[in-house]
Amino acid sequence: MKPVNIGLLGLGTVGGGTAAVLQNNAAEISRRLGRNLRISAVCDLSAEKAKEICPDAAFVKNPLDLVAREDVDIVVELFGGTGIAKEAVLAALQNGKHVVTANKKLLAEYGNEIFPLAEEKNAVVQFEAAVAGGIPIIKALREGLAANNIKSIAGIINGTSNFILTEMREKGSAFADVLKEAQALGYAEADPTFDIEGHDAGHKITLMSALAFGTPVNFQACYLEGISKLDSRDIKYAEELGYRIKLLGITRKTAKGIELRVHPTLIPESRLLANVNGVMNAVRVNADMVGETLYYGAGAGALPTASAVVADIIDISRLIDADTAHRVPHLAFQPAHVEAQTILPMDEITSSYYLRVQAEDKPGTLGKIAGVLAQNNVSIEALIQKGVIDKTTAEIVILTHSTVEKNIKASIAAIEALDCVETPITMIRMESLHD
Amino acid sequence: MKPVNIGLLGLGTVGGGTAAVLQNNAAEISRRLGRNLRISAVCDLSAEKAKEICPDAAFVKNPLDLVAREDVDIVVELFGGTGIAKEAVLAALQNGKHVVTANKKLLAEYGNEIFPLAEEKNAVVQFEAAVAGGIPIIKALREGLAANNIKSIAGIINGTSNFILTEMREKGSAFADVLKEAQALGYAEADPTFDIEGHDAGHKITLMSALAFGTPVNFQACYLEGISKLDSRDIKYAEELGYRIKLLGITRKTAKGIELRVHPTLIPESRLLANVNGVMNAVRVNADMVGETLYYGAGAGALPTASAVVADIIDISRLIDADTAHRVPHLAFQPAHVEAQTILPMDEITSSYYLRVQAEDKPGTLGKIAGVLAQNNVSIEALIQKGVIDKTTAEIVILTHSTVEKNIKASIAAIEALDCVETPITMIRMESLHD
Repeated sequence: MKPVNIGLLGLGTVGGGTAAVLQNNAAEISRRLGRNLRISAVCDLSAEKAKEICPDAAFVKNPLDLVAREDVDIVVELFGGTGIAKEAVLAALQNGKHVVTANKKLLAEYGNEIFPLAEEKNAVVQFEAAVAGGIPIIKALREGLAANNIKSIAGIINGTSNFILTEMREKGSAFADVLKEAQALGYAEADPTFDIEGHDAGHKITLMSALAFGTPVNFQACYLEGISKLDSRDIKYAEELGYRIKLLGITRKTAKGIELRVHPTLIPESRLLANVNGVMNAVRVNADMVGETLYYGAGAGALPTASAVVADIIDISRLIDADTAHRVPHLAFQPAHVEAQTILPMDEITSSYYLRVQAEDKPGTLGKIAGVLAQNNVSIEALIQKGVIDKTTAEIVILTHSTVEKNIKASIAAIEALDCVETPITMIRMESLHD
Repeated sequence: MKPVNIGLLGLGTVGGGTAAVLQNNAAEISRRLGRNLRISAVCDLSAEKAKEICPDAAFVKNPLDLVAREDVDIVVELFGGTGIAKEAVLAALQNGKHVVTANKKLLAEYGNEIFPLAEEKNAVVQFEAAVAGGIPIIKALREGLAANNIKSIAGIINGTSNFILTEMREKGSAFADVLKEAQALGYAEADPTFDIEGHDAGHKITLMSALAFGTPVNFQACYLEGISKLDSRDIKYAEELGYRIKLLGITRKTAKGIELRVHPTLIPESRLLANVNGVMNAVRVNADMVGETLYYGAGAGALPTASAVVADIIDISRLIDADTAHRVPHLAFQPAHVEAQTILPMDEITSSYYLRVQAEDKPGTLGKIAGVLAQNNVSIEALIQKGVIDKTTAEIVILTHSTVEKNIKASIAAIEALDCVETPITMIRMESLHD
């Protein structure tokens, strides 16, 4: 069979990695696929770089020219962002080209425009590399677990944040110090906002939520809370209580609607997810028939991400001449069955909670705090006085049982209003990872 | 589109689970697939059971009749074993029917007969449920990691053995006692040989080895060593040294050939695989581009295994009317590129080793032992006197660096020949899980 022609947009980290994987493993890929993959055209800001990395490909200056070329079967978009990347992907689909992209932001924010256009044009958009780098989690959600009602997903899906949290725990360092170290090591960007404030994880959990539950993407409804305000004291206290703090992307189907959120989370230290350290990623899926499964690997990096990009290219290449009926749908469910569903506001989600309160160290204080929680229907799993800050102030840590978030918010407001309590109270959500 | 018709062979644990998944999740599956799946015919020893579980399906007494029926598109073989199961699968393929099976023994022992027949007849055989139950590891190896040269696989792929090892470690109990407990809980068969002596894990690692490296299945060449001779003392000593003992299936591609083996293995306690407990399964894959990935979940049970069976049915249903060129090859590689490769004899594998030696507690003993190891080019990572058995006998634990197994065997023979040493020496292989 004739080779499949790839048009490559962008020769940055992942683009360079993709060219390397296609070249290094050409023989192994052809052994599996039964035909060759070749980069026929490439677009990058640097013509020199393009010539050096892809000497046999046509250099095309304008991405909109590349996506219109006769000799391109699959457009691989690795520009990133939502500017020219969006324009090029939409144009590629208009031309009936298949698209592979690692661009989580583009799909999480504009997926509801991109996927329907692809379906209209009988084109495929694949995006394994957009979530958790090299881990084949999109394939697991779309195909491997297709016999299940998926109940919930919880994932460590931002390597930068996980590296910082791992270092804070292991060395007891402050957030700001570890961030500097991560920047020096190249694990964090000069402007780290996107990673540490949960945006990146939010894009990824938004995509997984759509795949799991058969809904349009709805990034606007995703709650985002990052790690920049985490105090290393809370990491230490959590550890003393048998928990680790991880930045999790969480989505869960409930009778009331879908939970979709990113925030620091206490999880029991015995769970595998609690033991995923450094820049590694892992995604836990709970589904009704198979139960708990977990997928672990490198969430970023040139070659791991390119491994996922090229897996998508291979998938599309197998089906490139086939009838569209044979394809796996973009969002796992048939387009006619992708249904908008309520995304719960945070007040309505269910969780357990870690609270840290500084209060006057005198008789009656604990009783008053416990009373407020009881009035708000919050039941206490543990209430521990962790130590004395100064002669008159004690630090109290409370773990609650599961409750609706508005009850906790009302409790916090009422406790902060007590004379004997200093504000603000620290609140971190907890997950048992049993449902 | 019209429904896909399934002929179900066997209504045991997994067969009953498959019927339950198809019934319980019919709506969700149809949302994904775009058509319905229906059990059109069923074969089981009990006609009553068949009528009860599959009231709308034709009951067929003879499996060879079922696999010939016009109203069967996909044959789902869940008899197990290599008797009538083999006959029925071969007959189904002769009739051009697609086959889904959970039968690891059948495929590991007769795959070289079954897969070529399927290719000749343009039929598909899928077997996700044959390895690690509900974990979609076959899909990961065949598709998710298709851009990689796979370097090695190490898996906890027998839940019974992992349950026993977990209990032995947590309670310090002897193997025989825990086996009885596992039998009482239904985690071990009355005749547990197949699980505890490594046969089951051997079938599974044989299948994964073929998929990873593009070779025919070669179960005969797989080294099998179970857990029945493990002393709980070794589990305790391993733990003191920072290791856990797990029954691993291991396959690795080396310059000399392929390693293919099942045996108890010390692994560092910090690795995720060391923290997979109870009946759970996990498979670690090391591949050249993506690096390390790990897949975790339930390795057995009616519904988890059925989740994998039905995922295969869905996969085949998508492609049932498509040209064969669009399919993923059975053993991941195109049939013409599945090449026999040398499976290394155990003498030629490379590993590090844990040795426990009982020897006279007198000056010079350690020196003699260390001398023998040096003569055989075995370098020592640690040599620890663990305690005194009686007034004159001490127990010594040695951890070696990586070496070729024949060097260890020669060392053991020479140490056992020393006057000051009691026989036999206990030897357990170790894996750092870094390659």
